[in-house]
Amino acid sequence: MISTLLSLRDGAGCVPEHRFVYGADYNPEQWPRSVWKEDVRLMREAGVNLVSVGIFSWAHLQPTTDTWDFTWLDEVMDLLHQNDIGVDLATATASPPPWLTTAHPEILPVTVRGETLWPGARQHWRPTSPVFRRHALRLVRQIAAHYADHPALVAWHVNNELGCHNAYDYSDDAARSFRFWLRERYLTLEVLNAAWGTAFWSQRYSDWEQILPPRLAASHPNPTQQLDFKRFSSDCLRDHLRAEREVLREITPDVPVTTNFMVMGGTKAMDYPGWADEIDFVSNDHYLLPGPQDRDELSFSANLTSGISAGRPWFLMEHSTSAVNWQPVNVAKRPGELVRDSLLHVAHGADAVCFFQWRQSAAGAEKYHSAMVPHAGADSEVFRAVSELGATLKTLAPVAGSEREPARVGILYDWPSWWASEQDSHPTALIDYRQEALDWYSALLALGIRADLITCRADLNRHQVLIAPVLHVVSTGLAKDLTRYTEQGGHLITTYFSGIVDENDHVWLGGYPGALRDLLGIRIEEFGPLLPGDTVDLDNGTTGSLWTDRITVTGPDTKVLARYRSGAYAGRAAVTRRPAGHGSAAYISTRLGVQGLASLLPHLLDAAGVESELPRPLRGLVEIAVRRSAESRFLFLVNRTGETLSACGVEGEVLFGVTDADGILSLRPRGVAVLRQPRP
Amino acid sequence: MISTLLSLRDGAGCVPEHRFVYGADYNPEQWPRSVWKEDVRLMREAGVNLVSVGIFSWAHLQPTTDTWDFTWLDEVMDLLHQNDIGVDLATATASPPPWLTTAHPEILPVTVRGETLWPGARQHWRPTSPVFRRHALRLVRQIAAHYADHPALVAWHVNNELGCHNAYDYSDDAARSFRFWLRERYLTLEVLNAAWGTAFWSQRYSDWEQILPPRLAASHPNPTQQLDFKRFSSDCLRDHLRAEREVLREITPDVPVTTNFMVMGGTKAMDYPGWADEIDFVSNDHYLLPGPQDRDELSFSANLTSGISAGRPWFLMEHSTSAVNWQPVNVAKRPGELVRDSLLHVAHGADAVCFFQWRQSAAGAEKYHSAMVPHAGADSEVFRAVSELGATLKTLAPVAGSEREPARVGILYDWPSWWASEQDSHPTALIDYRQEALDWYSALLALGIRADLITCRADLNRHQVLIAPVLHVVSTGLAKDLTRYTEQGGHLITTYFSGIVDENDHVWLGGYPGALRDLLGIRIEEFGPLLPGDTVDLDNGTTGSLWTDRITVTGPDTKVLARYRSGAYAGRAAVTRRPAGHGSAAYISTRLGVQGLASLLPHLLDAAGVESELPRPLRGLVEIAVRRSAESRFLFLVNRTGETLSACGVEGEVLFGVTDADGILSLRPRGVAVLRQPRP
Amino acid sequence: MISTLLSLRDGAGCVPEHRFVYGADYNPEQWPRSVWKEDVRLMREAGVNLVSVGIFSWAHLQPTTDTWDFTWLDEVMDLLHQNDIGVDLATATASPPPWLTTAHPEILPVTVRGETLWPGARQHWRPTSPVFRRHALRLVRQIAAHYADHPALVAWHVNNELGCHNAYDYSDDAARSFRFWLRERYLTLEVLNAAWGTAFWSQRYSDWEQILPPRLAASHPNPTQQLDFKRFSSDCLRDHLRAEREVLREITPDVPVTTNFMVMGGTKAMDYPGWADEIDFVSNDHYLLPGPQDRDELSFSANLTSGISAGRPWFLMEHSTSAVNWQPVNVAKRPGELVRDSLLHVAHGADAVCFFQWRQSAAGAEKYHSAMVPHAGADSEVFRAVSELGATLKTLAPVAGSEREPARVGILYDWPSWWASEQDSHPTALIDYRQEALDWYSALLALGIRADLITCRADLNRHQVLIAPVLHVVSTGLAKDLTRYTEQGGHLITTYFSGIVDENDHVWLGGYPGALRDLLGIRIEEFGPLLPGDTVDLDNGTTGSLWTDRITVTGPDTKVLARYRSGAYAGRAAVTRRPAGHGSAAYISTRLGVQGLASLLPHLLDAAGVESELPRPLRGLVEIAVRRSAESRFLFLVNRTGETLSACGVEGEVLFGVTDADGILSLRPRGVAVLRQPRP
Repeated sequence: MISTLLSLRDGAGCVPEHRFVYGADYNPEQWPRSVWKEDVRLMREAGVNLVSVGIFSWAHLQPTTDTWDFTWLDEVMDLLHQNDIGVDLATATASPPPWLTTAHPEILPVTVRGETLWPGARQHWRPTSPVFRRHALRLVRQIAAHYADHPALVAWHVNNELGCHNAYDYSDDAARSFRFWLRERYLTLEVLNAAWGTAFWSQRYSDWEQILPPRLAASHPNPTQQLDFKRFSSDCLRDHLRAEREVLREITPDVPVTTNFMVMGGTKAMDYPGWADEIDFVSNDHYLLPGPQDRDELSFSANLTSGISAGRPWFLMEHSTSAVNWQPVNVAKRPGELVRDSLLHVAHGADAVCFFQWRQSAAGAEKYHSAMVPHAGADSEVFRAVSELGATLKTLAPVAGSEREPARVGILYDWPSWWASEQDSHPTALIDYRQEALDWYSALLALGIRADLITCRADLNRHQVLIAPVLHVVSTGLAKDLTRYTEQGGHLITTYFSGIVDENDHVWLGGYPGALRDLLGIRIEEFGPLLPGDTVDLDNGTTGSLWTDRITVTGPDTKVLARYRSGAYAGRAAVTRRPAGHGSAAYISTRLGVQGLASLLPHLLDAAGVESELPRPLRGLVEIAVRRSAESRFLFLVNRTGETLSACGVEGEVLFGVTDADGILSLRPRGVAVLRQPRP
Repeated sequence: MISTLLSLRDGAGCVPEHRFVYGADYNPEQWPRSVWKEDVRLMREAGVNLVSVGIFSWAHLQPTTDTWDFTWLDEVMDLLHQNDIGVDLATATASPPPWLTTAHPEILPVTVRGETLWPGARQHWRPTSPVFRRHALRLVRQIAAHYADHPALVAWHVNNELGCHNAYDYSDDAARSFRFWLRERYLTLEVLNAAWGTAFWSQRYSDWEQILPPRLAASHPNPTQQLDFKRFSSDCLRDHLRAEREVLREITPDVPVTTNFMVMGGTKAMDYPGWADEIDFVSNDHYLLPGPQDRDELSFSANLTSGISAGRPWFLMEHSTSAVNWQPVNVAKRPGELVRDSLLHVAHGADAVCFFQWRQSAAGAEKYHSAMVPHAGADSEVFRAVSELGATLKTLAPVAGSEREPARVGILYDWPSWWASEQDSHPTALIDYRQEALDWYSALLALGIRADLITCRADLNRHQVLIAPVLHVVSTGLAKDLTRYTEQGGHLITTYFSGIVDENDHVWLGGYPGALRDLLGIRIEEFGPLLPGDTVDLDNGTTGSLWTDRITVTGPDTKVLARYRSGAYAGRAAVTRRPAGHGSAAYISTRLGVQGLASLLPHLLDAAGVESELPRPLRGLVEIAVRRSAESRFLFLVNRTGETLSACGVEGEVLFGVTDADGILSLRPRGVAVLRQPRP
Repeated sequence: MISTLLSLRDGAGCVPEHRFVYGADYNPEQWPRSVWKEDVRLMREAGVNLVSVGIFSWAHLQPTTDTWDFTWLDEVMDLLHQNDIGVDLATATASPPPWLTTAHPEILPVTVRGETLWPGARQHWRPTSPVFRRHALRLVRQIAAHYADHPALVAWHVNNELGCHNAYDYSDDAARSFRFWLRERYLTLEVLNAAWGTAFWSQRYSDWEQILPPRLAASHPNPTQQLDFKRFSSDCLRDHLRAEREVLREITPDVPVTTNFMVMGGTKAMDYPGWADEIDFVSNDHYLLPGPQDRDELSFSANLTSGISAGRPWFLMEHSTSAVNWQPVNVAKRPGELVRDSLLHVAHGADAVCFFQWRQSAAGAEKYHSAMVPHAGADSEVFRAVSELGATLKTLAPVAGSEREPARVGILYDWPSWWASEQDSHPTALIDYRQEALDWYSALLALGIRADLITCRADLNRHQVLIAPVLHVVSTGLAKDLTRYTEQGGHLITTYFSGIVDENDHVWLGGYPGALRDLLGIRIEEFGPLLPGDTVDLDNGTTGSLWTDRITVTGPDTKVLARYRSGAYAGRAAVTRRPAGHGSAAYISTRLGVQGLASLLPHLLDAAGVESELPRPLRGLVEIAVRRSAESRFLFLVNRTGETLSACGVEGEVLFGVTDADGILSLRPRGVAVLRQPRP
């Protein structure tokens, strides 16, 4: 699709079919016209072939309610087209202009504490405001109509980072829409009262109008109300996406539509697996948070984006050439990291590498966010690295359009479990769903074993091993699917606090984990969460933290793989596995961390015969990712260390970066190699 | 009274007069009827003889403003009665139903920052709302009238944990009521202006209507306004208790009324000593907070509840079989702790052992709170321990109805001093009134010496030694009482920041501690609070933190028991004692902590000849508590350690738990023994 | 001027022309008349000759809207006059009385989150409220008219600590005034849109009415909006000062007017250099925050107050005899500190030493704030020290009226750079502008070298060396001034994050530090802020933290004084100096801390030939400050250590405190000596 994007624009096939998109957000309205000329010259120099334009241009395109000004953007679009640069044109609805919020303060979001979020920054709009919706769609219609036939237009960019700051709105608009959403979900109040468990704390509703968002309350609000409000909030944003898309499809049925997701770090409010079908191709923004697992997290996010995109190529819509501006301390990238980070995304299926932004702003809240052209100008190491990356992507053109080659190991990443497992009034407030999943991923990286992040919409059976960390919410359907999975030979691995509740956050009774008890062949009467700093020793040499379980082994064939050696449950099972059908079902009852998981995983993977595809000396030191086209496999090898690595045994045509010949792979510190092998 | 409770229900004396109440909150509305049958069967199995019903049933009993539904509760009451289980019936006013808050949002509390506390949890009502009061009393009247003659009814349970979340309300209703309360207290504005020191910062009121609660202000609000608002807020909740009680008394004059206090940890807003007279018997809820002093705190709270109940037996209305759900990490109880914790309450005068709740909820904010029947069901260690406890309580029946035997040492616990000493703009923000009192209590436990927590309403003269830690607020009357106490032979021990202000929070002038200066025979010109982490050495080997005083010894006969060896006041007195009348008055000017107090206390107790009642080898390792009836003394011995203990020298008939014969006491780790001695 | 104050009152020259003002805030309305008599007797005993009266008396002077009561104040003024004590009479507007806020709640400030700041404390008024202004000026007019001719009146004290709690108000009044202020600053919306960079995030304004204060927003508000709101807020408070002053000038044109600044610690909102011209003499309040640099900070603040006062004597309006009440832990002063701290202010130009307050309050939020007469009364060490200080100030009378002798080193302290450098969305949130300046000051103290804190309004050329730490905001004009300064022989030293933006917070492009790049002869492409805890080594043995820069040396004659030995920029320049004109321009790219700066400074000061004026053995151990009159130099020597120090080589007539004779200086721990030398 992304290759198609460029073909679209190229018309009569004047460029090779497969190539990477390379570019950035471009905000020419921040600069005088004189700079625009230099911009396109430098874009060509850097190999840029697509820019996203107009994301924050509402106030410039519609200066007042009834005036429109497209002249400056016409000029920009023409200039870009003249220079062979395509445009991913924004619908410009991300940040409402001052005239709109002044005339309609009722579109401003309201926090859980009842505070208004005022203009001054961005995204100060309620996803459920009918007034905002009307004005936004009016703008989309104007832009779409105006540029429908512009030759620079290659894709539509709906809004921007939907939900980044306004995902949770507790306004009266939100309340009204929440009720509509609930009526659709539950049909009758009786069903809702049952689902929400309103017999508790006298919360029984006798009229739909009584229902509110979970605003600041005297104590913990109803947990199902909280969970449904998360579902609802994600759905509201998706509805906004749909609404804009409908206008665009009506006017330009052939121009593909996307919006940039934020699969990264703490962004949690948007259930992206449910959004992917709404757009023509998946786009993602990613920014690093410094820390010991920062590049593992990048790989994890890119991998998960690929999962959301069902393995098809996707679009890296934003990342940074160097530092960002919104963290407490914004660390600059070191030499080599710009290219390495970009290619890590490509390794996991990105067919586009774009940055925020083209030219670093001189003013505004993001002026210290790095860009392709930094404050220092084109005479700078950053711009030289940017140009080098542009050239590199050209040499990697054969990779473009290829899909990811399924790994034997899948990691299930599930938004409802993420949301529900971290809610309040739980056995521990220290559950970190994403961190646990990332630890498993890091452990697999440490073993040199490929894994695919997948969502509940994926076909589980593509993976011999399925790791489902903290799979907290398990419906009857999912429980059946997992049982069937093991019956058909799959090896399921799950952890503490999995299988505990159904989709309404009601506990499965009779002993934990209710939904998976029989499958796992264990029964837990009580949880044993650990205080911060507390740990327990296991008899396999690993150390647990955060959580333990009082496990009784119930299945006659359930094997205890490790026992607690200390703590309240010393002597009891800590890790178990039960043969199930042609597969197995394993349970890990504590947080083992990356090292502990890396030491445990080989035993768990044995059953499925999963091993690293890397030569032994490179395992753990090199990350491997594989894409494949109809004819070829593309091996991405990323040096995870600060040392030069070399090994023999990886064969293939060198597309990028292997400096040594004779089949001996040689990877610089933080270096990347890309090899092409014929597809077997 | 509690025994009477059961007699009441038992009618013609078919059960022995003395026995323990055993039970839980019971919320059948959360479960289908099919479960109710199992419930009563298991209750009988466990020995349950009383449950609290209806606490959060408002929305079920009154589904809309004008509809009532008692059918389900009738059925529950009948079922319980048929199974010989009494009912502590709630007035159901704890959590207003959605229809009420929708129709009357003006009943919702308002925080100090002006935020509304919305429905979604519980207790979202203003204690001063006339609208809420009217609806609540209407409900109480309906319930009372409906069940007045039901044979299962043995007591009324007013509301629930009054003030747990809504103690401080800053709404306009609160402002209006605050003014009424102040008019009653001060009669004229001149008196109020003087009491509040409004000459400071231009705060002089010229009209009652100008007075407000201490809402969010630009700087520290007036301290007397703050203190009075605390008094007022406690009184408002007590007024609500009174109002419900009046309805109940009118309809069922013979059914005793209680409400569950929260004498525990950080609960501070309710001046319970002033509430005890309003009810027919004292009830308390207690939950552990994990930490090094957690069981000392349990003992302390139970002891203080006994003090509030003036030594009469009381009702443990709620505690937990295992983990709770509202702490950051909710630790499960280990084997033996359920029984030990329960009996610790009994040791300090509880005649009832009840839990929250009977059956663990499958949904709602408290679904991870342990219960008598856990999620795992009756086939569980928790339920087996619950049944064991039921049997144990039967063997302890002779204890029921006995009072606590006064200890020789009293610890004065005073709400106004608690409130006032921790207010803002003080020498240090690190004063922790309850912790200081708990440290003294722990030090006495470490010495094996019994002490009674008492309130200012108690007869001080019952105790040879009176410890009054941080007795910050001392009125002229209290100062006189304390002087008289020492004159009559009592030994007073007090600490830093005691005797500093009068009941209006005005400093007693002329040198600290103004109210006790002459009695103590010292004069302090300046406080010397210590920065966090700073400590000072004393020449008796102890170490002080938090606070020091620049003491001048003024009494000719004041003895210096310890001097500072380091710090700004090195060489000066740190601990003093003055012979006073037939007693003495001692002063400790710094925070010594449990160990320091335990090393100092023997010297202080010498004068009164107070010693441990335990055999020497058990001192500090075993907690001793004594109840007594007309004929017997009941010794409770609780092993505070993780070791098995044994010693000879404690005689008596073994009621519970001593496994060794021949007069040699043998206590398992965390074990409890109960012995009966004839009363001398 | 301050000497004149007293002459004013003394009329016919009955006292020597030069003498110190000594006194306190005096709040007789908090005490019965009987205490007033003792007050004036003790004031005379202590040497008090001036008190500030009426600061919080609004409610007493105007008990209701239309009633006035001056009788009590008449009596106080007469009593003071009869006892030769002058009055600095307050306009009493600091804290609006309850009747005013009840009638006009629209004067209450609103926080950034939209919360009202209610009465109960003080300063609950919007600086921009026309209603408050009207009532305040009415009061000022009444007081001024009433006391215009009172013989005790020697000065006017406008309001009190303007902006202490109400500097930032986000109300609708503030919004309205902000728009007026912006119209004056920018004239047209186009200019404002350009200055604020509103092309970013669609913030373009099409009408002045759309502009708001930077209220709580969904993300980082516009940085120039934030910076302008800080400028505006400071100006609003200054406008209030002006408005009161105008009334006073009209009625008593000859009575000098002041208001008490808060040059200390974290007080940041008021751009005092722009306020100094509005008053007849500068006053300051100063309170210590305990910590390793606490007395350096006292010296720094006094020095900066002198800079704001352009070197002329000023008035220490408030400090404390011992502990304050508003810190988390309020440490008492140790013996000697009261005198030492007072004389440190005098050393830096104070001609008045006043305290908050005369008599310690028995009630109210500041009752634990120390005073000249403590709770213990006059029979106390504090009062004896107070009396001793009164006597000391008499012996120092010759110093009064002298100006500070300019040091060879200046440290530039700039409010816009302070405000702008610490805004959000920056490379690091850990920039602490004042701490960096204080570290340079401490390093100079450690070397025994005098330095003057100066503001951007000062004549830079008075100083051979100009240190400008974190001079973040550099306009074209300031850049030119600094260049001219070095051309004329000045030696400029600046640091990381200096010269980055213009007055609108727009980045100077082309490489950092854009405004100073050529002058410094370096170019920085990227910042390298360090994570908390991270450090880098320099090859001169120092250690950097917080920040690094990727420096390219561009000037052919730029010398690298130190290089990074570790970190991302190892091998690159860390400290540079470029000869510029007859002077030089040096750059320090990291935070070196006090020790690092003290080791680097001698090399930097070499060029200017700046050395300590102290005998070698005293350097670093003694702080030296110099005042001078037409005929004399007054050397203040303050022992910074806890040891007794002695050295020869400091000559002069001993005015105070040197205990040893024969030209050998002897300073007790924390002692102060004052010597008089003839002016050369």
